[in-house]
Amino acid sequence: MRVVITGGGGFLGQKLARRLLDKGTLAGPDGRQTEIGELILFDQVTPRPIADRRVRGIPGDVADAKQIANLITPATASIFHLASVVSAGAEADFDLGYRVNLDGTRNVLEAARATSAKPRLVFTSSIATYGGGLPDVVTDETPQRPETSYGTQKAIGEALVNDYSRKGFIDGRSVRLPTITIRPGKPNKAASTWASSIMREPLQGEDAICPVTPETPMACLGPRRCVENLIRVHEVAAEALGSHRSTLLTGIPVTAGEMEKALHRNAGNRKLGRVIWQHDPDIQRIVDGWPKATRSDKAAKLGMEVQPDVDTMIREFIEDELTTG
Amino acid sequence: MRVVITGGGGFLGQKLARRLLDKGTLAGPDGRQTEIGELILFDQVTPRPIADRRVRGIPGDVADAKQIANLITPATASIFHLASVVSAGAEADFDLGYRVNLDGTRNVLEAARATSAKPRLVFTSSIATYGGGLPDVVTDETPQRPETSYGTQKAIGEALVNDYSRKGFIDGRSVRLPTITIRPGKPNKAASTWASSIMREPLQGEDAICPVTPETPMACLGPRRCVENLIRVHEVAAEALGSHRSTLLTGIPVTAGEMEKALHRNAGNRKLGRVIWQHDPDIQRIVDGWPKATRSDKAAKLGMEVQPDVDTMIREFIEDELTTG
Repeated sequence: MRVVITGGGGFLGQKLARRLLDKGTLAGPDGRQTEIGELILFDQVTPRPIADRRVRGIPGDVADAKQIANLITPATASIFHLASVVSAGAEADFDLGYRVNLDGTRNVLEAARATSAKPRLVFTSSIATYGGGLPDVVTDETPQRPETSYGTQKAIGEALVNDYSRKGFIDGRSVRLPTITIRPGKPNKAASTWASSIMREPLQGEDAICPVTPETPMACLGPRRCVENLIRVHEVAAEALGSHRSTLLTGIPVTAGEMEKALHRNAGNRKLGRVIWQHDPDIQRIVDGWPKATRSDKAAKLGMEVQPDVDTMIREFIEDELTTG
Repeated sequence: MRVVITGGGGFLGQKLARRLLDKGTLAGPDGRQTEIGELILFDQVTPRPIADRRVRGIPGDVADAKQIANLITPATASIFHLASVVSAGAEADFDLGYRVNLDGTRNVLEAARATSAKPRLVFTSSIATYGGGLPDVVTDETPQRPETSYGTQKAIGEALVNDYSRKGFIDGRSVRLPTITIRPGKPNKAASTWASSIMREPLQGEDAICPVTPETPMACLGPRRCVENLIRVHEVAAEALGSHRSTLLTGIPVTAGEMEKALHRNAGNRKLGRVIWQHDPDIQRIVDGWPKATRSDKAAKLGMEVQPDVDTMIREFIEDELTTG
C-alpha cells in the first residue's frame, strides 16, 4: 500500500515517517495489517531524504488541486495530512493561511474522495481551536471558539474530515494536538516556541529566552508520544471513534518555571545553558488565551499515550535527539 | 446606505425586507441610525417584487465570486447573508451544498472585505450545527458536532464570520436559528417541514401528515420574532457580542402533539383540517438527532425575542399570513 504524509518535511512528518518505516505495516482498507510498499513525503521543498527504498520525497504545493490529485492515487490507502502554515504565519498572512490550511485541506479531501478507495486519513488539528474564556482543564465537552486564523482553519478542517467521513468518502480521524514539546531544531515564530527552546537550548549548552512568567502553564505532549498517537488513531476501528471523528489529545500542564527546574533534575553531566527571563507582554497575552491543560476521556479510551511528567519529556528528547548510536 | 439580502427571495428574506422597509433605518458604520437608501434582494431567480422605490431584485449565483464582488459595493453598509441550500438539499447533493453554503459564504466575506468599508454582516446559521449525544437543552456551552453537510457548512460559515470579524475585515454576527415555524408557503424537503405543515395546512382547512410521534419535540421560533432577532443582532454594538460573534437563539420545545392541541385552542371559527399521524422512521431518526430545546443566556442579554408559547406562534401566523387588510 501507498502512504502519503503531507508536511513530510517537517519535524513531525519526518519522525512519523521513520516510525512507520520501522513498523512496516499499517491497517489497510480491510482493517488488516498491510505492508507499506511506498511512503511518499510531500512538502513545499523536497523533504530531507531518508535512506529507505520505500521512501520518495515529492515537492509541491498543497493548495494546487492538480498536484494533490496526482499525489493521492487510488493505491493510496493512508494519508497523514500534517501540512499547514503555522499559527504565527497564518496570522501574519491571512490569504496564505486560508490557501494552505483550508483550500489545501479541501484539495486533499477531494483527491481522497476521487479515488473511491475510502482511504484512512489522519488530520492534525490543534488546541488552538479553543479560546475565549476557557475552563482550567479543556475537555471533550469544551466548545471550540478559536481566536486565531490558524485555529479557525484547523477547526474547519476537522469539520470537513468529519463530514467527508460521514458521507463515506474517506475514513478520517482528526486529533487536536497540545503544544508539542520538546521539538528538535531551531526556534520558529510560533508564540509557543519558548516551550521547546527553554529546554532544548540549555540541554545543548546554550542560553534561551523565556518571554512569559515562570507561572505560565502550557498543555504539553512530547513528540515521541505524539507520533505514537498519530499511528494509534490511524489504527483504531472506525466504530471506536463514535459519531464524531475528532479526538482531543491530553496535554499535561507544565509551567515555564517547572520546565527550568526539571532541566536541572535531568541534565546528567551536561553543562546547561541558562533560561533568561525576558518578559514580552504580547506573547504572554497570546499564551494566556490558550488551554492550560487538556484532558480527553475519549483519547484515553482509544489508548492514546500521555507523558506522565516533564521529566519524561526531557529524557525522551535526550534519547531521541541528543544521543547518537 | 445600501443593504444587501442574499436569499432575498426566500420567505425569511422577504419578511426581513418588508420589516426593514417599514423601519427605514439601520445602524450605519458609525453606529448611528442611517437611512436605507437602497435594498438589494439577491437570489437565484429574481425575487418577488416589493412595490417600493428603494428595492431592487438581482438574480444570480452566490457561488460566482465575480457576481458577488459586483453585488457588494463599497456603499454596502449592511449584508444579511441568508442564501443557502437547505438541509435535505445539501445532503442530497454534496457538491452543490459546499458550492453554495461554503464557497458562496466565502465569496460574500471576500467581497465584503474587498470594500474596505467593514460592513455589518448578519449570517444565519442553524441549530443543525449541533448533533451527537445532545443534552436535553442545548446551551451556549454545548459543542457543535454537526451530523449533516448542511450543519457542517453552517458551522464553518460561523467560524469564518468570526475570523473575518476578528481581523477587522467585517463586523459580523451569526445567529443559530432554531426550527422556524410556522413558515408560510408550501412543504419542502426538509425533515422539519411537518413542524410548519401540521399547523399551517389545518389552519387553512387542509389535512397534513405528521411523520413523527406526538411526543417528538422541536426547538421552535416563529418567523416574526426571528426577523426581529436578525435586525436586533445587526443593531447591537460589536462589544456586546464578546469575543465570539455567534449567538445561539432560544427555541422553545414544542411537541407535535402539543402543536395539534394548540391548533384547536386558537382556531377561532375556522374549520380545521386534520393532522394525520403517519409514522416515517427515517424522518423520526433524523429529527431525534436534533436539539429538543435551546436556551441562550447570551441571546437573552442581547435582547433577543422568544415566543412565550406555541399559542403565540399560531396567533402571529394567523395575523401575519392569514389575515388580509
